[in-house]
Amino acid sequence: MCKVDRHWGLSLKELFSRALEDATKECELPKIDAVIIGNMCGVDLSWQNNIAPLVADYSGFPSIPAFRVENACASGASALLAGYLAVASGMHDYVLVGGVEKLTEGVSSDVTLALAKAADAETEIYYGASFVSLNALLMRMYMERFNVDRHPFAQFSSLMHRNASKNPYAQLPFEISVENILRSEPIADPITLYDCAPIGDGAAVVVLAPLDEAFKHSDSIVELAGIWCATDTIDVASREDPLFMRSTFEASRNACKMAGISVKDAQVLEVHDTFTITGFLSLESLGLLPPGGSPTALEEGVLSPGGTWQVNLSGGLKARGHPVGATGVYQAAEIHQQLIERFPGVKASPAEIGLTQNVGGVGSISVVAIYRRVK
Amino acid sequence: MCKVDRHWGLSLKELFSRALEDATKECELPKIDAVIIGNMCGVDLSWQNNIAPLVADYSGFPSIPAFRVENACASGASALLAGYLAVASGMHDYVLVGGVEKLTEGVSSDVTLALAKAADAETEIYYGASFVSLNALLMRMYMERFNVDRHPFAQFSSLMHRNASKNPYAQLPFEISVENILRSEPIADPITLYDCAPIGDGAAVVVLAPLDEAFKHSDSIVELAGIWCATDTIDVASREDPLFMRSTFEASRNACKMAGISVKDAQVLEVHDTFTITGFLSLESLGLLPPGGSPTALEEGVLSPGGTWQVNLSGGLKARGHPVGATGVYQAAEIHQQLIERFPGVKASPAEIGLTQNVGGVGSISVVAIYRRVK
Repeated sequence: MCKVDRHWGLSLKELFSRALEDATKECELPKIDAVIIGNMCGVDLSWQNNIAPLVADYSGFPSIPAFRVENACASGASALLAGYLAVASGMHDYVLVGGVEKLTEGVSSDVTLALAKAADAETEIYYGASFVSLNALLMRMYMERFNVDRHPFAQFSSLMHRNASKNPYAQLPFEISVENILRSEPIADPITLYDCAPIGDGAAVVVLAPLDEAFKHSDSIVELAGIWCATDTIDVASREDPLFMRSTFEASRNACKMAGISVKDAQVLEVHDTFTITGFLSLESLGLLPPGGSPTALEEGVLSPGGTWQVNLSGGLKARGHPVGATGVYQAAEIHQQLIERFPGVKASPAEIGLTQNVGGVGSISVVAIYRRVK
Repeated sequence: MCKVDRHWGLSLKELFSRALEDATKECELPKIDAVIIGNMCGVDLSWQNNIAPLVADYSGFPSIPAFRVENACASGASALLAGYLAVASGMHDYVLVGGVEKLTEGVSSDVTLALAKAADAETEIYYGASFVSLNALLMRMYMERFNVDRHPFAQFSSLMHRNASKNPYAQLPFEISVENILRSEPIADPITLYDCAPIGDGAAVVVLAPLDEAFKHSDSIVELAGIWCATDTIDVASREDPLFMRSTFEASRNACKMAGISVKDAQVLEVHDTFTITGFLSLESLGLLPPGGSPTALEEGVLSPGGTWQVNLSGGLKARGHPVGATGVYQAAEIHQQLIERFPGVKASPAEIGLTQNVGGVGSISVVAIYRRVK
């Protein structure tokens, strides 16, 4: 990974090569057979489509299969899924899956519009619904239905910042108290500044290979035991219950089935928390917590380091940062490092099973992956 | 497929559903397990990212795996490749691969910029190199190296229009003489209007399945016998020989190897001719013709209906049209129809082996697929 940050001096292809450099510190890269890239906003913010050939060329992988996968903010994990298909098909042995995103200082600075394009242009964007305003409606609905104020959301945010403060790759590595979060300025009521993931640049890579091949190159192997992707209606208004992310539920159910586990067997998790409300809905829709159960879980510490489900020890999107199309690959790299006990930040109690959940749009698409330590 | 045209009344998701409707005329659709979409310019021209969940939702495929693949103008065939991986992996039985593109009457009308983003932003776009100007440089180089004038290019264009004139799905279904083409106005010297593929909207779909499953639903089955994708340097200036599309050569070599054929065994082909020069370079880089051999092949009629290699009986990008991210899927659908002898336009002499070649950028990425009739 490279640190999520404002990398004003680095373009997309340069960010990507920084992540690659970081990966080679962990293990010597095998000969790469194919490159699959997750990216969402390159077209808008860097005038760059065709990013897979671009980074393959710049990083010195000539004449190999390459393509980009886009599923809005779930592009990274969707690239991971495509990488899984490429290896499982028997077509390719070593597949480099990368996520790269540059949200600051691009050709255009209209990040809000670029992110809004994950919604349905015709039924949402043209009417002025931005990504944050749609999430604000969900947060308000949650507060009313479960009769909670902003306090549990601030608790979640504070926990994320505490975790991030130890993570050298985090964009916002500082602690902040619940009281200060509650005082932060409104963005789209009831969402305030510290409910939001920051805008940042980043890149991350992982290498997928058949297990027997992988052992030839490293003894720190993690098995991608299950991975699934599922859609929901793209416009939030069409959902029976907007507080239930069906895409996450279905992706979780199928990925767990594939891995032969129950979702509650996951010990260390990186879940999607673009906004604090997204974090709550993610945990509840995964099937870890009952609807409205997040505030209690936070109080009881079951989501904290050393708790039953150690959630977002990286700091999550909230504080590690959210370079959108790269986020899913960050999550995979972080869980890999946790399971092999080499994560450089807050370490999980030794764990065998990890889970990542990456969401696109306002829940219109989710990817859930299950990881198992094999050494 | 739907007819490539100016579909001013239809949005991306509506275009897609038209193609789906057309497909159901050919055979009843099986239960779809996953949706993979090729699209390039939705973000720029329709403010729409996240297109895979969008069309899956709108077309009535709820809660299934879906993602978009982007490789510039080769997005369609790259989606086909991803679909192949999905089926070959054993993860999914029935994969709907679609291409959809809306280039006319979008939110933004800056199609030239949208298409330029297939080049390297930093080394090409920022210096004013557009997609057509880069291709004009190649055409000039070809004319000088092989000592030809614009005449063979006009011959190619005229042949494409003659083929398209019989194709109900073609955007420009009319004949035009070599003389009139030679008189057409300059776009970027030496490229003139009739050297260029038109700007249009379109969508096409195919269903991939394991062969044994496919026979349960139709007796008109075509085997996707080989498919490969390869990159080249993204900027044209870095290539040893700009008139050799290494990406096409490598994709052709590997796809043919996978199918166990020589490229010259292909009897009916749809190749990428964004500009007439692209058509020449495609045929030569595939390995069908020697460098500079296209003009002679045209004179001898080996590329015409009934010739050795029946090329672009659809009319090609030049005259069938080029809805960029959908083009690769049109090509697949056309070759499918040719092999099962149901193409509604110019029919190939009965053929067993078909080939498609889809190019992204100015050759920075190519996908070649080999098809075999199995009934």
